[in-house]
Amino acid sequence: MALIVQKYGGTSVADPERIRNVARRVVETVDAGHQVAVVVSAMAGETNQLVELARDLGGAEPDPREYDVLVSTGEQKTIALLAMAIQGLGRQARSFTGGQLGLRTDTAHTKARIRSIDSERLLAVLRGGSVGVIAGFQGVDDEGNITTLGRGGSDTSAVAVACALEADVCEIYTDVDGVFTTDPNMVPGARMLERVSFEEMLEMASLGAKVLQTRSVKFAMRYGVPIHVRSSFHHGEGTWVLPEEEVMEKLMVSGVTYNRDEAKIRVVGVKDAPGVAGGLLLPFSEAGIVVDMIVQNVSQDGTTDLTFTVPRRDYPAALELARRAATQSGARDVEGDDRIAKVSVVGMGMKDHAGVAARMFQVLGEEGINIQLISTSEIKISVVIEEKYTELAVRALHAAFVEGGAEAPTEER
Amino acid sequence: MALIVQKYGGTSVADPERIRNVARRVVETVDAGHQVAVVVSAMAGETNQLVELARDLGGAEPDPREYDVLVSTGEQKTIALLAMAIQGLGRQARSFTGGQLGLRTDTAHTKARIRSIDSERLLAVLRGGSVGVIAGFQGVDDEGNITTLGRGGSDTSAVAVACALEADVCEIYTDVDGVFTTDPNMVPGARMLERVSFEEMLEMASLGAKVLQTRSVKFAMRYGVPIHVRSSFHHGEGTWVLPEEEVMEKLMVSGVTYNRDEAKIRVVGVKDAPGVAGGLLLPFSEAGIVVDMIVQNVSQDGTTDLTFTVPRRDYPAALELARRAATQSGARDVEGDDRIAKVSVVGMGMKDHAGVAARMFQVLGEEGINIQLISTSEIKISVVIEEKYTELAVRALHAAFVEGGAEAPTEER
Repeated sequence: MALIVQKYGGTSVADPERIRNVARRVVETVDAGHQVAVVVSAMAGETNQLVELARDLGGAEPDPREYDVLVSTGEQKTIALLAMAIQGLGRQARSFTGGQLGLRTDTAHTKARIRSIDSERLLAVLRGGSVGVIAGFQGVDDEGNITTLGRGGSDTSAVAVACALEADVCEIYTDVDGVFTTDPNMVPGARMLERVSFEEMLEMASLGAKVLQTRSVKFAMRYGVPIHVRSSFHHGEGTWVLPEEEVMEKLMVSGVTYNRDEAKIRVVGVKDAPGVAGGLLLPFSEAGIVVDMIVQNVSQDGTTDLTFTVPRRDYPAALELARRAATQSGARDVEGDDRIAKVSVVGMGMKDHAGVAARMFQVLGEEGINIQLISTSEIKISVVIEEKYTELAVRALHAAFVEGGAEAPTEER
Repeated sequence: MALIVQKYGGTSVADPERIRNVARRVVETVDAGHQVAVVVSAMAGETNQLVELARDLGGAEPDPREYDVLVSTGEQKTIALLAMAIQGLGRQARSFTGGQLGLRTDTAHTKARIRSIDSERLLAVLRGGSVGVIAGFQGVDDEGNITTLGRGGSDTSAVAVACALEADVCEIYTDVDGVFTTDPNMVPGARMLERVSFEEMLEMASLGAKVLQTRSVKFAMRYGVPIHVRSSFHHGEGTWVLPEEEVMEKLMVSGVTYNRDEAKIRVVGVKDAPGVAGGLLLPFSEAGIVVDMIVQNVSQDGTTDLTFTVPRRDYPAALELARRAATQSGARDVEGDDRIAKVSVVGMGMKDHAGVAARMFQVLGEEGINIQLISTSEIKISVVIEEKYTELAVRALHAAFVEGGAEAPTEER
């Protein structure tokens, strides 16, 4: 007997018929002898309707506390309906709102962070032979105010519940088969990964793979809870996201990802002295704008160029901030470009950055694609290129690194 | 400065535009210098949608706990939206679910009864200059399970909040102008009452006047909180429901009501001995069927006839129960009729039952309407007649008692 947490997204519970399908899937798992806690999102479309109502009555920036009271009703509806559907199949089920689960968060409405889960009540229900049906995306703060977790919140709820229960696996049901080496809509040769390490998944998630949210992967990595990303349409195995040591097959490159949601800003002629670059970036952090890649060019005549990327939606504000900061610090000019794409290769086997980078440049160079920025981490290399070359770059890199099947030399295990 | 509780029903908050209207009305009250707590229902249509979903997934008898989790989302939506709309007018507002208000109930899902309200948190919000926006119809039990109060729950919530706050008035906003002497759709001469006593309102509510639910009137009467039933479409005064001593104008008859939701059952030839009638009625109470009027005819040859009314929806079950009970107790026969109406006259000034009754029989007799049953309380006389004569009887009694303006002799105050 295993303890399994399952998570179904909005598409999987979009209407009564699909909710019944989910109920059947849950009951199959119960009948296989497992304890099951299910985390669900709002029915597809529901959240958008609620957000529209909030805009109508609360304007462009509705009160965040009330916004959370409003949108959390979406998941509350689903848990009651799914519990009923499971009961309709002759099994016991009991729903939990975020508050009833004791999922405590901070008070940052619309983007709250989980602090703790009081798993006792849920565990008692599971031990009693019932399915626990949990509203994803929501919690309560210390005052009992309803909070929501923001983007990807339901995945994060599911993983957090799995961690609190010390579950054997957190199954994330989705409309794709698993995690792919790259976007299958863009590259026909994309293939599903059987296993991928938390670290790789984290890079791939943050670099643009849409299957799992970064937050939930971090959570699972910290507590070592395996995630199984799988299809809600069939029973085939999907992709297991596991601790590094459990991922046997170490590919040099596990995936090629892209992200077209960023813009680039370059501050030219910055005085090359300690603290100046930091002073330029401080206003962005104060304004809540996430600065991603930061590259400082080689110093020339006592000045340097500082280039960085920001989310594209923040581009106009960021450009304005950069111009002000540049004037104050005596920089020469500010340039910007929001027609860029970030393309990355990710892989645990990527020990030799120089080698991968060299091959990457070669592949892109053969396609006539100019590299504007480079940034590396332990297991990924990202380049910024002109947006229009995104697909070309992804296909070429996938062909060279993944379809070519370059396997890293790895110690026997 | 007064402390005012306002209650708006589903029609008043049916869409964003109407919610904005309610917000304006609330803000007017705030600007007049009052502290305001608002209790709201679900947007009209919302509850029906939720109930349909429950039927779809939970069948004819969905799990009551999950049903409450589901339908309580309706009011939760409204409180967030109304709070946003009030904020949009530049005033502070804060929403409260039943649980956040600390509205504790028993565990009788779908028809829970209020046990207590922890008014401290709400009072702090009101004292801080915010409007409290409260989800009607819902509470939590001691375990934190969401409960709903059943029919008329939002009125009851509003009155309970007014009692807990020791509010100066509980304003019930509705789509009619106030409480009428009889159904204005049936009788053109119906007029609105300026004041009516709790006792009269209670009789009128339980006898079929739809404006206020019995439960909420009882609550207000017990705590002496004045209710003001008024229109949400204009600013004119409506009907005040008050302790008897504050209702100056004591009409002999304040209203004529009717109820077509009952059916009649007659057990013929019951042994006229102590305990026999009680034994006949016991199964109904055990089956949860509310027996209303009970009349025992004059004894003949050692047997008697027992006649009573039950809700029409329970008629088939009640008839079956009566037949079984009759067989067991050796009664001769059981007859039933679900084509009846109960017509009543209600008035604090009605000290002389015999006089009113005599006039009532005379009026009905002149119209050729036969009286099947009679039942009286301190301030009302009800008769059961053939259903098809309902309108005729109501018009005739209203003309005789209300439009005739028979005023009771009353002590000077």
